[in-house]
Amino acid sequence: MAAMFELDPAFLATSHAIGDLRLCAARLQDDARYPWIVLIPRRAALRELEDLPPGERGALLDEVIAAGDAVRKLGEAAGRPVEKLNIAALGNVTAQLHAHVVGRRADDPAWPDPVWGRPGARPYDRLELETALAVARQALGLAPQP
Amino acid sequence: MAAMFELDPAFLATSHAIGDLRLCAARLQDDARYPWIVLIPRRAALRELEDLPPGERGALLDEVIAAGDAVRKLGEAAGRPVEKLNIAALGNVTAQLHAHVVGRRADDPAWPDPVWGRPGARPYDRLELETALAVARQALGLAPQP
Repeated sequence: MAAMFELDPAFLATSHAIGDLRLCAARLQDDARYPWIVLIPRRAALRELEDLPPGERGALLDEVIAAGDAVRKLGEAAGRPVEKLNIAALGNVTAQLHAHVVGRRADDPAWPDPVWGRPGARPYDRLELETALAVARQALGLAPQP
Repeated sequence: MAAMFELDPAFLATSHAIGDLRLCAARLQDDARYPWIVLIPRRAALRELEDLPPGERGALLDEVIAAGDAVRKLGEAAGRPVEKLNIAALGNVTAQLHAHVVGRRADDPAWPDPVWGRPGARPYDRLELETALAVARQALGLAPQP
């Protein structure tokens, strides 16, 4: 029997569910300083990009690009339009294959350095979070959630 | 007339030419602390991943995966096998679209943080560089250069 996909619990602590795309679980990183979506392919036992079957790699790229569009819309909704996307699959801390899509601006706290491995995340407050999830779901063509 | 592809001079200062793949120029980052290949799609006026025509996105992903294999072979040749690949398209400093493929180990100087935006690159010496370029060219199916 094939292993089931299970989300690494580390993602639950650091992000909020946006919804499921065709391949990936899409999550909003809980750091209101950056519009930031994390995509986790819903397949068991993936660690490196090459572990993803060749037939699904295109879907990951499509979803990364869609997440980039959603991140731009999150930036606009927050009054801070994105100037550059940062896209990365790292996995040094959480090994389960995932891709970060982060909207960056020259006036953000980490610019021009990367956002990973730096302290100081600012969790969303409840209203900001509801707004951001609604914007992200609409951008990604996902149904609003109750 | 379509604009010609021209490599941003910033890459010349920080990396060495490995050779041209079907889509990308492949370059060895001049930091012997990490096996690290940079891929620059040889198309004019690209900044974000979505600027790459959809028909060429699969080639970029294929070349990223091939560069990952080459990075693993660079790590083996240096007696420091890669434990995790880090893949990223950032562009905060050099805007021309490019992808980093970096081999990481839990005992490397930046682990588990990302390698970008940190000082202390250790340039290759001449012999190390010749060896690394030969290993990378063989792994990527490129002809050795004189």
